[in-house]
Amino acid sequence: MTTQSDDPARAVDFRHRTSLQVRFRDTDAFGHVNNAVFASYTELARIRYLLDVLRPDRPFDRMPLILAHLAIDFRSPILFGEEVLVETRVDRIGRTSFAMSHRMTAGEDRVVGEVASVLVAYDYEAAGPMPVPDAWRATFAAFEGRPLDTDSSRPMAAGTTT
Amino acid sequence: MTTQSDDPARAVDFRHRTSLQVRFRDTDAFGHVNNAVFASYTELARIRYLLDVLRPDRPFDRMPLILAHLAIDFRSPILFGEEVLVETRVDRIGRTSFAMSHRMTAGEDRVVGEVASVLVAYDYEAAGPMPVPDAWRATFAAFEGRPLDTDSSRPMAAGTTT
Amino acid sequence: MTTQSDDPARAVDFRHRTSLQVRFRDTDAFGHVNNAVFASYTELARIRYLLDVLRPDRPFDRMPLILAHLAIDFRSPILFGEEVLVETRVDRIGRTSFAMSHRMTAGEDRVVGEVASVLVAYDYEAAGPMPVPDAWRATFAAFEGRPLDTDSSRPMAAGTTT
Amino acid sequence: MTTQSDDPARAVDFRHRTSLQVRFRDTDAFGHVNNAVFASYTELARIRYLLDVLRPDRPFDRMPLILAHLAIDFRSPILFGEEVLVETRVDRIGRTSFAMSHRMTAGEDRVVGEVASVLVAYDYEAAGPMPVPDAWRATFAAFEGRPLDTDSSRPMAAGTTT
Repeated sequence: MTTQSDDPARAVDFRHRTSLQVRFRDTDAFGHVNNAVFASYTELARIRYLLDVLRPDRPFDRMPLILAHLAIDFRSPILFGEEVLVETRVDRIGRTSFAMSHRMTAGEDRVVGEVASVLVAYDYEAAGPMPVPDAWRATFAAFEGRPLDTDSSRPMAAGTTT
Repeated sequence: MTTQSDDPARAVDFRHRTSLQVRFRDTDAFGHVNNAVFASYTELARIRYLLDVLRPDRPFDRMPLILAHLAIDFRSPILFGEEVLVETRVDRIGRTSFAMSHRMTAGEDRVVGEVASVLVAYDYEAAGPMPVPDAWRATFAAFEGRPLDTDSSRPMAAGTTT
Repeated sequence: MTTQSDDPARAVDFRHRTSLQVRFRDTDAFGHVNNAVFASYTELARIRYLLDVLRPDRPFDRMPLILAHLAIDFRSPILFGEEVLVETRVDRIGRTSFAMSHRMTAGEDRVVGEVASVLVAYDYEAAGPMPVPDAWRATFAAFEGRPLDTDSSRPMAAGTTT
Repeated sequence: MTTQSDDPARAVDFRHRTSLQVRFRDTDAFGHVNNAVFASYTELARIRYLLDVLRPDRPFDRMPLILAHLAIDFRSPILFGEEVLVETRVDRIGRTSFAMSHRMTAGEDRVVGEVASVLVAYDYEAAGPMPVPDAWRATFAAFEGRPLDTDSSRPMAAGTTT
């Protein structure tokens, strides 16, 4: 389901890819894949990234993370019968949160959506944000092949403070 | 959301009603509410029935039940903009399972679906079926206003044995 | 996405297979794939069967069909992270409708659901049922490798008359 | 389903409200309403606003609009059993697009999400953007009770040019 890009031009930007199977249920009465389904495609790509990069040898389990922000730019409608590719990367890491971006394409590399998301490291027992684990910082940077830490004074998203 | 019918002709059959709000997301590219959404409407009506009848004073929590069988007859398409009413009743109670049926209508009492479901009383700790609690038998029968126990030799659904 | 089975023991029963990608969105608060999603998996398998068998060289387009009946026996919960296989066959063909069945498995061939569906050939312009096209009868029978016509006096499903 | 606020403190900000019925299917394995469902709640609120304000006497039909951008800030999890209120307003109108915002609350006015969306007026026959109709500008401004036109040099959203 997930492979790293072999395309040198793209490898700089996105090193993780998830192929999405479009279902008929994904469509709505306007005849295209419904806007909310872009969030579900993104969610699967985000989880695959986190499992593949942080926990390659372990089964799915809840990570100490919550989704704080999701922004989708819709570029082109997706039709039933198409296959969708979601490329994912970590862009920046703050003290308690990190930003990911996703590039969604269909057909012959037609861009259908561009997505930004912010995840907050969250301690479910303490019911509050926690620092992004240092091991994650190192593993994300190693996977992405570039430094990722960010000035913590720059907010991750409107309304996100750390 | 849920009221008992005031219509004497209908009160014999269905004493529990749940009103469903149709969302645009419920539609598919054929322009109507998608068939899978009938299962979601039924699920909400089933849960409302179980909460209203068995646990009227308690918040939602998992009951010792699993859905074993669901059969839907599609009678008429549902359009966005309509409101759907799902009437629910318990039909029969076996040793470890019970059968419910649902009548779905839209618009001016137009029947859009008829649904049968079988629930199995399930002990999650023991990971197996358990007898339907006697208190449930009595409460269902009292709510429905008729005897509900059934000959346990008659299967609840194809493939269901008790 | 779709291949014919190479397993001789299974080839007798189901000659069409669709692999389904489980999404995190398919789960519900009980931790498994929600019951309504079984209908969506079935729908994709049904459409793939119809396209692959009846229209192998044409893009997706609406066929003169409506879903009249769907019955699901839930055998085992599906977990996020599993891949689901839906095997599909045409069982019987009546005058204006035909019956399909589906076998859903996950993991190491663990049966998770058994599904029966009835499709009615439908003339959208005339807004009524129409005879199943003779070409479809022949093509289904050729694909399935066995005769499929049925005694039209035997109903396809409760409440279906032809 | 939709009423104008009677609360004078709130009336300044949001004059349109849509009440959303939470379904069990809206939850995911983390036990809360899934993030993609926030998009579906927003979609219903947006459509209700557009129908109520622009077409109060006409049935649902496709409007010459496409969703170009959607941004969601998740403030608090939504539980099954809660009712969700989505307040909607038009914030700004550009040459060919306009921006809406939504305030989502559950329980006792607990803010669960804040949503921004950008709609582009779209001529489906010409397959391209078109000016926002003057009648819409006037009707939106009259409903909102304040001027809405915006400097067209200020982009509606990242990647949106008019």
